Amino acid sequence: MYSPADVTTCSEFPIPDRMKAWVLADPGELKFTDKNVPVPRRAEVLLRVDAAAICATDLDVIYHGPPAIIQGGLPFNKNFTPGHEYMGTVVALGPGVDECQIGDRVAVEIHAGCGQCKRCREGMYTSCLNYGLNYGSSDKGHRANGFTTDGAFCEYQVNNINTLVAISDDMSDEEGALVVTAGTAMYALTELGGLVAGESVIVSGAGPIGLMVIAVAKALGAQPVILTEIRDDRMNIARGLGADAVVNVGKVRDVVAAVKELNDGKGADYVVECSGSNTAVNDAVHMASRGGKVCLAAFAHAPANLDVAHVVSNNIYLYGIRGEGKSAVRRAEALMRQKRFDATKIHTHTFPLAELPTAIRYAKDRIDGAIKVVVKPRLNAPS
Amino acid sequence: MYSPADVTTCSEFPIPDRMKAWVLADPGELKFTDKNVPVPRRAEVLLRVDAAAICATDLDVIYHGPPAIIQGGLPFNKNFTPGHEYMGTVVALGPGVDECQIGDRVAVEIHAGCGQCKRCREGMYTSCLNYGLNYGSSDKGHRANGFTTDGAFCEYQVNNINTLVAISDDMSDEEGALVVTAGTAMYALTELGGLVAGESVIVSGAGPIGLMVIAVAKALGAQPVILTEIRDDRMNIARGLGADAVVNVGKVRDVVAAVKELNDGKGADYVVECSGSNTAVNDAVHMASRGGKVCLAAFAHAPANLDVAHVVSNNIYLYGIRGEGKSAVRRAEALMRQKRFDATKIHTHTFPLAELPTAIRYAKDRIDGAIKVVVKPRLNAPS
Amino acid sequence: MYSPADVTTCSEFPIPDRMKAWVLADPGELKFTDKNVPVPRRAEVLLRVDAAAICATDLDVIYHGPPAIIQGGLPFNKNFTPGHEYMGTVVALGPGVDECQIGDRVAVEIHAGCGQCKRCREGMYTSCLNYGLNYGSSDKGHRANGFTTDGAFCEYQVNNINTLVAISDDMSDEEGALVVTAGTAMYALTELGGLVAGESVIVSGAGPIGLMVIAVAKALGAQPVILTEIRDDRMNIARGLGADAVVNVGKVRDVVAAVKELNDGKGADYVVECSGSNTAVNDAVHMASRGGKVCLAAFAHAPANLDVAHVVSNNIYLYGIRGEGKSAVRRAEALMRQKRFDATKIHTHTFPLAELPTAIRYAKDRIDGAIKVVVKPRLNAPS
Amino acid sequence: MYSPADVTTCSEFPIPDRMKAWVLADPGELKFTDKNVPVPRRAEVLLRVDAAAICATDLDVIYHGPPAIIQGGLPFNKNFTPGHEYMGTVVALGPGVDECQIGDRVAVEIHAGCGQCKRCREGMYTSCLNYGLNYGSSDKGHRANGFTTDGAFCEYQVNNINTLVAISDDMSDEEGALVVTAGTAMYALTELGGLVAGESVIVSGAGPIGLMVIAVAKALGAQPVILTEIRDDRMNIARGLGADAVVNVGKVRDVVAAVKELNDGKGADYVVECSGSNTAVNDAVHMASRGGKVCLAAFAHAPANLDVAHVVSNNIYLYGIRGEGKSAVRRAEALMRQKRFDATKIHTHTFPLAELPTAIRYAKDRIDGAIKVVVKPRLNAPS
Repeated sequence: MYSPADVTTCSEFPIPDRMKAWVLADPGELKFTDKNVPVPRRAEVLLRVDAAAICATDLDVIYHGPPAIIQGGLPFNKNFTPGHEYMGTVVALGPGVDECQIGDRVAVEIHAGCGQCKRCREGMYTSCLNYGLNYGSSDKGHRANGFTTDGAFCEYQVNNINTLVAISDDMSDEEGALVVTAGTAMYALTELGGLVAGESVIVSGAGPIGLMVIAVAKALGAQPVILTEIRDDRMNIARGLGADAVVNVGKVRDVVAAVKELNDGKGADYVVECSGSNTAVNDAVHMASRGGKVCLAAFAHAPANLDVAHVVSNNIYLYGIRGEGKSAVRRAEALMRQKRFDATKIHTHTFPLAELPTAIRYAKDRIDGAIKVVVKPRLNAPS
Repeated sequence: MYSPADVTTCSEFPIPDRMKAWVLADPGELKFTDKNVPVPRRAEVLLRVDAAAICATDLDVIYHGPPAIIQGGLPFNKNFTPGHEYMGTVVALGPGVDECQIGDRVAVEIHAGCGQCKRCREGMYTSCLNYGLNYGSSDKGHRANGFTTDGAFCEYQVNNINTLVAISDDMSDEEGALVVTAGTAMYALTELGGLVAGESVIVSGAGPIGLMVIAVAKALGAQPVILTEIRDDRMNIARGLGADAVVNVGKVRDVVAAVKELNDGKGADYVVECSGSNTAVNDAVHMASRGGKVCLAAFAHAPANLDVAHVVSNNIYLYGIRGEGKSAVRRAEALMRQKRFDATKIHTHTFPLAELPTAIRYAKDRIDGAIKVVVKPRLNAPS
Repeated sequence: MYSPADVTTCSEFPIPDRMKAWVLADPGELKFTDKNVPVPRRAEVLLRVDAAAICATDLDVIYHGPPAIIQGGLPFNKNFTPGHEYMGTVVALGPGVDECQIGDRVAVEIHAGCGQCKRCREGMYTSCLNYGLNYGSSDKGHRANGFTTDGAFCEYQVNNINTLVAISDDMSDEEGALVVTAGTAMYALTELGGLVAGESVIVSGAGPIGLMVIAVAKALGAQPVILTEIRDDRMNIARGLGADAVVNVGKVRDVVAAVKELNDGKGADYVVECSGSNTAVNDAVHMASRGGKVCLAAFAHAPANLDVAHVVSNNIYLYGIRGEGKSAVRRAEALMRQKRFDATKIHTHTFPLAELPTAIRYAKDRIDGAIKVVVKPRLNAPS
Repeated sequence: MYSPADVTTCSEFPIPDRMKAWVLADPGELKFTDKNVPVPRRAEVLLRVDAAAICATDLDVIYHGPPAIIQGGLPFNKNFTPGHEYMGTVVALGPGVDECQIGDRVAVEIHAGCGQCKRCREGMYTSCLNYGLNYGSSDKGHRANGFTTDGAFCEYQVNNINTLVAISDDMSDEEGALVVTAGTAMYALTELGGLVAGESVIVSGAGPIGLMVIAVAKALGAQPVILTEIRDDRMNIARGLGADAVVNVGKVRDVVAAVKELNDGKGADYVVECSGSNTAVNDAVHMASRGGKVCLAAFAHAPANLDVAHVVSNNIYLYGIRGEGKSAVRRAEALMRQKRFDATKIHTHTFPLAELPTAIRYAKDRIDGAIKVVVKPRLNAPS
């Protein structure tokens, strides 16, 4: 039985020594295997994974290893467990932890900063200058779940208490797994100034983050919120989450002109680029009004052409964001807890943990209209 | 004699009715002619132009008319007087003006906002949504000296009191004409957060704005301030203005690597792109550290290729700025008044107003090491 | 008939030359009389007053003249028309105005800044350094409706276009008259950082502004929002507007302790002092958590005792705000337009304009549970 | 010999096992005794104390124990070593530390936050909600040198790497010990917005912090910087540090009026209250212009009377700050390193560590014009 020194457990939540976990084999390959249940240290807890969502970035990790952000790069890490969007239940406390209780249901931020570098000292823990340094002699205590430290496609995982966000009792596990996506949307709007009531917000691309930006922007009173998108099913979901208008990129001749027309010809106050498309960044800066702001929230796979003269002439600011940041997940959870939007509209499929490859295939190929696909370790298991 | 109704004048500063002025003829052509001395209205003064500097943007105006920022564009404006970087002496006050006195020596911000649009209400008067609207029935009161309203290549010009910045008695006219350039540098650093003491600042390109960014950044305590540049003479001036290091773009294999090496391998806190080069924006975002900030202060003539994934992964923010903004000119003048840097190092040549075409040629072709070239209406004139 | 030069009118909205208006007689006395309908100038419109709410500050103006903010003070102004919280219909446009149309229904911000002073240049138009200067030779164009320029207790009034906020068609006149109060609440939250989702907000005092702070804070996702108050009826309204908890100041021994207990013993993130009570400011700083923020939104009539050592030790910041500021009225209207809260819960009584003294008595003495009392010039009039 | 496990030392800096240290005996009493040299843990180093300055807060600690900020208070701590303003040399590294090297000379911030609470996550580590929790089972890792963890009146002390600020080689030990005081001044100006070039800054009270505010404000280009003070010797030092004007509180009838007169009658943009006097806070808010900002940087010993109505009417903001915050010490050191002001002007006396009681007496009673008094453990010792 699991009973490491200095770790607090509770008989109500018995923990095995070994667990099922997916791990990286060769690039592109996942293997379902057994691992030791990890042990929380100071300022950490052990979570029982209840639901983990699949994100496009998971595919990058599976095929290419840890994200390129790490200076010098880390080697492709065999035996690494991916999975970075999840929620679970606190089942064991590391030494000295009293910030939460065993039994608490929590969503989990991806990043815990080192707490010591310049950015962490500024509160920018997602831009930690010691990103990825959490092994051996260069252990600076940074963690990025499922990117540089083992993630959620397994039964149990440790997490820094900084990453825990308590979720409401009446939130389902699936909804809880979406809190961090909503947190990314909230972070985007935070960096754009946060005060969006009555302001126009353009969202380009109705992937999960784009849809969440629509939902959060509407919850904060933005108006109009306008989506540019090409897929009909996504447009409908966007409308259900409150989008005031949709520009069908496939049907208008000039998407920038179409957006500006909906904004008195002057462009929008805020644009959030969530499509990752090659031309979207340049479109975004042209959709913005003079003095407008653009958030770049998608990992474009190819460089973009940028009309710098337009950016300079029009005092446009661009904010690249990775993931959640500045405790935005907590603010997003607060809106969800208060039923300000229905995040479950973007959850489409649930599979048992054992069927992760199928789940990934659904998410990747958008089978059966898949948007957010979730795996649950305890699905079909005795509870 | 000049004595318009409701305008206050003073016998110490007699004003003629007519003045010499350069005006646009056909695109690319200037004509030296006579014009009526203009009349200040409410919240305006008449300035006697004492010194006007030449800026690269003047050439755009002379060849192409008003800047492209204006929605729909203005027609090429025959009879328009360009010139937007200048200083002068207050010689007449519009009705109700008591913010300054006749005889005051002032530098002049380029932009006076309409005061009514969303951006002006936010204090962003250089991003006025009524940019260029100051004629006839669409007069919203916006002014941009030498861009959309008559400028400084003449003997007298009116200006809104919002644009006036009193200069120190012991500043020469030439130095006074550079205050607005220093103000642009100050605005760049303001938008980057303003707190640069002990922070690394990279300046790409040692044009007048780049050189001023070096000077202002050092005055505010930035360290190190590093210039990337290709011209030897400019490097020397940069060092004289306080640059702690210079990377010779012509001599290093990889300018980004060279800059990072000077910043612990992590990149710089702040990068100010002042070169307008095609590749500079992408270099700038790679020179920045994770969570770093980049100001785009140059009007690039061609679109740039931007590695958006890098911007997103590293939470990099980009700030396009046009000109001066947020009363930065006043802060810049305060530093110059207190002798925190010697702006005259970037002034190289002075010509009489009548020799404007020669002055422009010197500035454009960098004849005789020209950086800032100034014309003075009263040079060789009885004072 | 009303047809001033350069003013645009429309036959659908015929305007008389003379109108009914309340004016100041001796201090404390109002007189119902006739006045010329005023004429809009550049950047101004003429509004038909449809509904004007009564605010405690109106009583100050009626008894003591213009607010003390004005340097040196203005004399008690006989013939002045008070009234500063109102909405109406645009019925005539000053020269060059195209920002709105005749027939538009608008709420009205109180303050239009001069546009030229340091604060206006920063976007702080409610802190205009030329406050009150809008007469004769010192006309700097500042306006404060019903404070320093004629207000709304009459049939028609001019207003600067900067102060106009278009309201939704399905908002009643009474609700429209409350938009500016909601704007004050929004401004309070704006200055506290704006990002209140999931944060604790304490509101001390359930006057109209306090109630609106509750409503707006909840609309933005604050949780918990806690009211401290002594009047039972107000507590009920607060609950109706979303307050999560109420501390009955009359029933707890230690209001600070009671509030802290509701916040993990650590105090609240944000406190908005709306009671004007003598002890409330010191209580507020003790209710705030370390690093917490306090907004002072009430005009206390006596100096407060402040435990400065506590403020310093705990890095507490205090923000004094007067009225609306930073376009917050527009953001508030956007929330109301989207039905995020029901402002009409704080409207209790409506009277015809002619019965203003009765309306004031209701408001002042809280007769019949009066909170916001509105007068309507066209009540019982043919429409 | 000192050789704890997992700690890196260097033969060049041999460390004894025991050291001399001052400790608290009964309240108000200090005892010179022996202690074990402490051992650095993860993210900590051992410093050899080279110079420690005496601050008024040390007296509070000596007479009353840890500062009142701690919830519930800590008991008066016999055997505790006070001393919180100091510099030293790194002589041993805790496990995994590579952020600095043995031999580095560093100034030391007072506070290391827990890194986990809400405020630390925001970058507000001096407002840590786990302030004082660094003992036994509630060890949250917070440290406040000489307040809640052992301080500098001894030969060696451990410190978190977050608190270390490398100092320039050509700074004397005494100057290095003043870096944290300069950092407090920098933090004050940071919270006031940081952009003080050409702005008026009033400093009330020329204690060490007040004098440093003058020096740092001038270094950043503030103008005018005006001191209000009563002691002639301090006025002279203030002038030496750049004060543009001094108001002698003992000689003017109305200090507020005198200050406003020096600011166009409108008041100052920024006021920093450093006197701790009973009436100073209310004076400060009246010295500020409309929309002005006031920093409270002194621990007043009695509550202040505050004219709240003035604060509210004039949109005045007040910022209480304790100590250094937001990496301001690093920015201050950068200015000192670049010789932007001469901090040694406020250092007046140096004593050996053994004579701490004499040193304290000098500081407390201002004997012989004492301002900053420093003790040095190695004075008269072989080096």
